[in-house]
Amino acid sequence: MSIKFELLKKSKECQARLGKISTTHGEIETPIFMPVGTQATVKTMSPTELESIGAQIILSNTYHLYLRPGHELVKEAGGLHTFMNWKRPILTDSGGFQVFSLAQLREISDEGVTFRSHLDGSKHVFSPEKSMEIQMALGSDIAMAFDECAPYPCSYEDAKKAMERTTKWAERCLKYHDHPYQVVFGIVQGSIYKDLRIQSAKDITSLDFPGYGIGGLSVGEPKPVMYEVLEEMMPFLPENKPRYLMGVGSPDCLIEGVLRGVDMFDCVLPTRIARNGTVLTSRGKLVIRNAQYARDFSPLDPECDCYACKNFTRAYIRHLLKADEVLGIRLTTIHNLSYLINLMAKIRQAIREDRLLDFAQEFYEKYNS
Amino acid sequence: MSIKFELLKKSKECQARLGKISTTHGEIETPIFMPVGTQATVKTMSPTELESIGAQIILSNTYHLYLRPGHELVKEAGGLHTFMNWKRPILTDSGGFQVFSLAQLREISDEGVTFRSHLDGSKHVFSPEKSMEIQMALGSDIAMAFDECAPYPCSYEDAKKAMERTTKWAERCLKYHDHPYQVVFGIVQGSIYKDLRIQSAKDITSLDFPGYGIGGLSVGEPKPVMYEVLEEMMPFLPENKPRYLMGVGSPDCLIEGVLRGVDMFDCVLPTRIARNGTVLTSRGKLVIRNAQYARDFSPLDPECDCYACKNFTRAYIRHLLKADEVLGIRLTTIHNLSYLINLMAKIRQAIREDRLLDFAQEFYEKYNS
Repeated sequence: MSIKFELLKKSKECQARLGKISTTHGEIETPIFMPVGTQATVKTMSPTELESIGAQIILSNTYHLYLRPGHELVKEAGGLHTFMNWKRPILTDSGGFQVFSLAQLREISDEGVTFRSHLDGSKHVFSPEKSMEIQMALGSDIAMAFDECAPYPCSYEDAKKAMERTTKWAERCLKYHDHPYQVVFGIVQGSIYKDLRIQSAKDITSLDFPGYGIGGLSVGEPKPVMYEVLEEMMPFLPENKPRYLMGVGSPDCLIEGVLRGVDMFDCVLPTRIARNGTVLTSRGKLVIRNAQYARDFSPLDPECDCYACKNFTRAYIRHLLKADEVLGIRLTTIHNLSYLINLMAKIRQAIREDRLLDFAQEFYEKYNS
Repeated sequence: MSIKFELLKKSKECQARLGKISTTHGEIETPIFMPVGTQATVKTMSPTELESIGAQIILSNTYHLYLRPGHELVKEAGGLHTFMNWKRPILTDSGGFQVFSLAQLREISDEGVTFRSHLDGSKHVFSPEKSMEIQMALGSDIAMAFDECAPYPCSYEDAKKAMERTTKWAERCLKYHDHPYQVVFGIVQGSIYKDLRIQSAKDITSLDFPGYGIGGLSVGEPKPVMYEVLEEMMPFLPENKPRYLMGVGSPDCLIEGVLRGVDMFDCVLPTRIARNGTVLTSRGKLVIRNAQYARDFSPLDPECDCYACKNFTRAYIRHLLKADEVLGIRLTTIHNLSYLINLMAKIRQAIREDRLLDFAQEFYEKYNS
């Protein structure tokens, strides 16, 4: 197995943990936020910029890379790290979630999922084995097991079926997977049903993966429901393995996840809202396209020291966004990713110093002011 | 006067010159290519990247900045340098060419030009005085006189009228202009008519501007015609002032312009074709979007050491372009601008060593191979 997880510290106040994941491509401090590079690029960013803002690991999408440029081409290029010139760790998703949410005409059976590409309507089949084959070709450091993510809302029966299928598929993934350094994380499903979540956690952890994804959350359910599910299932995940809450990335959810014992997060939120002209700041979200910022010559966030905040004003960035200039979305993206990466660094420091609860309270007071 | 032009060397082989322009915001080596930053940004590039590829001066557009965000706002921000955080010299055009080519419903009189904005149809008037007022508010280092650029083809009579009006407007520009460090360059017009060009050169240079633009070329006429006009008029431009061939930027035109005594160039070509997926290389243009580059793991130009060429392959950049990823057009833009900036550095070196004719021949042999 080519990753190692060290649990460096458990908070004295809550379930939060401090850890370190070592991979072939370097180390990752946890808790960590992973920027999303769907198509072998974190939208608008260069790998050099990602490094300079302190991104330690990025996520890329199996479904997208399979369709374009194709995993064989990426393999021929020397793998995803070489193809996109990103030297640090990469996690790839399984393609499952994307197939369910993006592809058309999907049919699910125990064998796998038949779907049509959102690009050209061509027909494809994803199975646990196919997902592993693609992720092995991509050569990410962490691959995810191919799972069935139940939608929200979802009946108990449907959630149970998806959960059971996810376990069977997890076994097939492990059986098929064979790679010199890549490891596979299992995924816990079970929708919002407590007993299903616990059953799934028991079943999946019995397969002894080196880490566990928590799937099927942040798919439309209220946040308090997500937090409750996390609290209920966390005791059934082993302490000595990283826990990854998939698709979660708003500042409040990151804090609440960490408080409940989550180690890893990913989300398109910071990069997507950046392209719509919204920035995350220590005083909450700002819609920087708004007219009120036309003559505002202060930085996006006076407390931030990213490239955008050190060099440009709200007025200039607003002008770029209004004029559809690429530099505008580059700067809002740099800022939003820096903001979340810096937030996670502060969270780690607060865990280290056993003051995460105070940190959280201060954060909310300011963010909501 | 706040710029100084030093003629460092005259080629022994041809009309080429080596010079240095000193401005409040730094020095410019000539011959020079100026990247175009229409809307207070060179499309897709950050100012830091522009500096790192060796851009010594950029051009920005009066017409665009007047309409959005407005020159008063830019002035309030501390001027264009501060607004966009570009510390090196800036040249602004007069808005004349843009009004003639972009705006709608324009009416030209001796007083000025009435036009409707291409953004919202609102009605505006540009006059020599208005163009000076806007450029003074922007605070560029070099402003251009407000001229009437005749289209191509153009009758002798129309070209004569535009040329004569350009002279009258040049006088009004000089009379109105008043700025602590900004200077105004006059513009020679006269279409492709030899006697009009010579008359215009005599009239405009009699006003004793610190530099001269050559306008109304590269507007559709065949290249040999442009070269001939340059040759005919150049003896009538003073040797001790910089000569700026406006809107010219293909590699061959840069070389031919320098051979005929031009010191400054600007063009949207390198950045525009970059966004369409075409790159300039030592072996000619490549349409990198083409299928033949899908599995080409070599750099855009093996002889280039720009960020794009040192770090990424044609296959990856093609993938980014096909997937509409911003990093794709960022990389092709960085490369194309680097290519032209490096070409100009090589041209300056060749002038210095009196081997520009050999350099040009070698360049063409390779570029057309």
